[in-house]
Amino acid sequence: IEQQNSEVVKAKLEDLHPMDIAEIMDELNTEEAKFLYLLLEGEKASDVLIEIPENERRRFLKVLPPELIAKQFIEYMDSDDAADVVRDLEEDMKEAVLQKIADKEQAGDIADLLEYDEESAGGLMAKELIKVNENWTVQTSLKEISKQAEDIDEIYYVYVVDDDDFLKGILSLKKLILNPTHSKIKNLIEDDIHYVKTDASHEDVAMAMERFDLVAIPVVDHIGRLKGRITIDDVVDVIREEAERDYQMVSGITGDVESGDRVWNLTRARLPWLLIGLLGGILGARVLGANEEALSKIQGIAFFIPLIAAMAGNVGVQSSSIVVQTIASGARDFDSFGKKLLKELAVGLITALVFSTLIFTYNFAFSNSMELTWAVSISLFIVIVFASLFGTTIPLILNKLKIDPALATGPFITTMNDILGLMMYMLIAKLFFNII
Amino acid sequence: IEQQNSEVVKAKLEDLHPMDIAEIMDELNTEEAKFLYLLLEGEKASDVLIEIPENERRRFLKVLPPELIAKQFIEYMDSDDAADVVRDLEEDMKEAVLQKIADKEQAGDIADLLEYDEESAGGLMAKELIKVNENWTVQTSLKEISKQAEDIDEIYYVYVVDDDDFLKGILSLKKLILNPTHSKIKNLIEDDIHYVKTDASHEDVAMAMERFDLVAIPVVDHIGRLKGRITIDDVVDVIREEAERDYQMVSGITGDVESGDRVWNLTRARLPWLLIGLLGGILGARVLGANEEALSKIQGIAFFIPLIAAMAGNVGVQSSSIVVQTIASGARDFDSFGKKLLKELAVGLITALVFSTLIFTYNFAFSNSMELTWAVSISLFIVIVFASLFGTTIPLILNKLKIDPALATGPFITTMNDILGLMMYMLIAKLFFNII
Repeated sequence: IEQQNSEVVKAKLEDLHPMDIAEIMDELNTEEAKFLYLLLEGEKASDVLIEIPENERRRFLKVLPPELIAKQFIEYMDSDDAADVVRDLEEDMKEAVLQKIADKEQAGDIADLLEYDEESAGGLMAKELIKVNENWTVQTSLKEISKQAEDIDEIYYVYVVDDDDFLKGILSLKKLILNPTHSKIKNLIEDDIHYVKTDASHEDVAMAMERFDLVAIPVVDHIGRLKGRITIDDVVDVIREEAERDYQMVSGITGDVESGDRVWNLTRARLPWLLIGLLGGILGARVLGANEEALSKIQGIAFFIPLIAAMAGNVGVQSSSIVVQTIASGARDFDSFGKKLLKELAVGLITALVFSTLIFTYNFAFSNSMELTWAVSISLFIVIVFASLFGTTIPLILNKLKIDPALATGPFITTMNDILGLMMYMLIAKLFFNII
Repeated sequence: IEQQNSEVVKAKLEDLHPMDIAEIMDELNTEEAKFLYLLLEGEKASDVLIEIPENERRRFLKVLPPELIAKQFIEYMDSDDAADVVRDLEEDMKEAVLQKIADKEQAGDIADLLEYDEESAGGLMAKELIKVNENWTVQTSLKEISKQAEDIDEIYYVYVVDDDDFLKGILSLKKLILNPTHSKIKNLIEDDIHYVKTDASHEDVAMAMERFDLVAIPVVDHIGRLKGRITIDDVVDVIREEAERDYQMVSGITGDVESGDRVWNLTRARLPWLLIGLLGGILGARVLGANEEALSKIQGIAFFIPLIAAMAGNVGVQSSSIVVQTIASGARDFDSFGKKLLKELAVGLITALVFSTLIFTYNFAFSNSMELTWAVSISLFIVIVFASLFGTTIPLILNKLKIDPALATGPFITTMNDILGLMMYMLIAKLFFNII
């Protein structure tokens, strides 16, 4: 479609939602995407830009002049989206773009937002909000709101501040509509409200909004002055990203990839954990190599290597992922470290009993070595209990050390448990066959 | 704290958020929780009830009389939450509770909602909404809205319908405030709106609201009549649950468990996938048993069993989880089935080349059997390529068959790849050592 025919393409683009256009552009090369982009008009162009994945956007903005960026995109954007775009530019580009913005108030807002850490509530918030003074009447407020509302798509709450801009409470539009025009705002406000500080983490913001079912949350500085607001759509993205990151960790992928990405990106995201798996495999080969005598003397001992390794790995991943998910869900936790371990010990013991009995029955029926039957069952028992405790402990310790506990799920825990499981299996088998 | 002292406890409860109270109650036994519960008043009691996990709630509602349930909880709830609670009751309890509801309109709304499939948009929506007729003026509308707004916590949009209740568009409160009182609603409405049908899946609702950054979405029946609305807080729960389910699948857990749960629940959630792992292990033992001759004749062949199995498992999980995540994110996909496989083939070939070279180098340096060195490297190469393709194909096929593709992640794909990897390894080793 993307040969030359601007008119046809333009007509088609008008019917599409910005996110769909962004996805189409993601499939094109830079030149084609640029051609497509220049056909878009004002607000739509900026809506599309914000939907393009970050690394693509960076590549794309590099080929556009600062003036065009300022006039065609930034001026149509809310301050939070604009700050995200500007933040990604190179240092001298940043200044050039900020200077080209015609609306100096907007430029100032963006510059303010750039001061905040990207990972904090300040980096997520927008400056556009509706605020009224607590001493105004409903009538004055309605007039002021009409003025302020021009730049804002949707009003969820009206924030109430005092003369020094300290956040005093919120006011729903419903109250404004339903009360007589001469009422004082002071008497209508809801003052038992939820807010976050500018340096709160994205996770804290998401947790607060989810817990209290909020559509927007005000952001205040350390002494309580109103600085901005965060809306639920940004938080939905945070929740989604957080869940995706944990999912990627447990499945051994580094970085945010989708099957539509380029081959090289897909490969690169998979190599690091596989390398750990390879090193684990080599270590496992060393463990078995050190037990060469047992392997050659005990008939059938090698048969159960995959079983022991697989069970150790699966049990470990289960334990660690339950811990990680509990931490991620932000559920308040009444169990102490010790109680958690005791509980996991109970779970491990039951699981171990079930599966070592099963494998004992199987081997009792089909194997002709009673020693091997015992060695496999007892090894499986010990390996399962150990893998449960190990899988629970590591993420809890990482979390205490303020390291992302999700690091301890997936290939890491599998590999560790594989090796440790093999060592125990070999040791126990040798004990049964008196080869030590 | 929960001995007798009602007054002290009551005072403490007043300061707590419903969700915190729900978590405390989760830790208590049924009798203690009931005692605590009866201390709560009206609206707070119903807010707490809705935060209690479903299975706990069922246990708890059983011990309360229908009249109390109707008067103390249901009457304070929005219709969607009320329907969720009533849906969980046993058949005769359901009718008893519905009959005890004083507000017949509310009882009717709840009964209507119970007709919808719990997993559909109809099962998620609430009946409470603000609607105006397109022929009214702003002034009439404001008056009607004040009447309707009594039962509703927050107004996000005003829905506009015609005389037959067909959804014509939406109106933001902002527009109502900013326009002259004699304007006709017809001229103010936004008619390019997003809505869902009553039988849309939760996932479709979540995708639409996320894609278009909506705070609330109207639900219409098959001919377009307005039936209810779904708000973002319910959808955030859907997104969270969906992500958690995929996470549990990949880590081999069935059911929604947290480390705070009871030992038996934790164990039960882990047994099914471990059983599959055990069967896989036994199959693996059979495969190795059938190759007993090769294992005893070829020195060192057993050492690399864990390596081959682990790499096959890890690669398979990576491939399948990328597919599952791409499907779950709802990204529109322009790649055909064939193109996906070709891409995955490329990824698999690069990965295989990297790791078989690495293991070749290692064995070349440390092993004294050139045949074994070749056999391990070539097996690893083939196993990685195969595991990539397998991991990609299975979830894609499941998705085509309308089965949850997440089923094919985690222990399932690991176990399959373990066994197939072992078979290939044995076959290739035998070829190299001429034992076939």
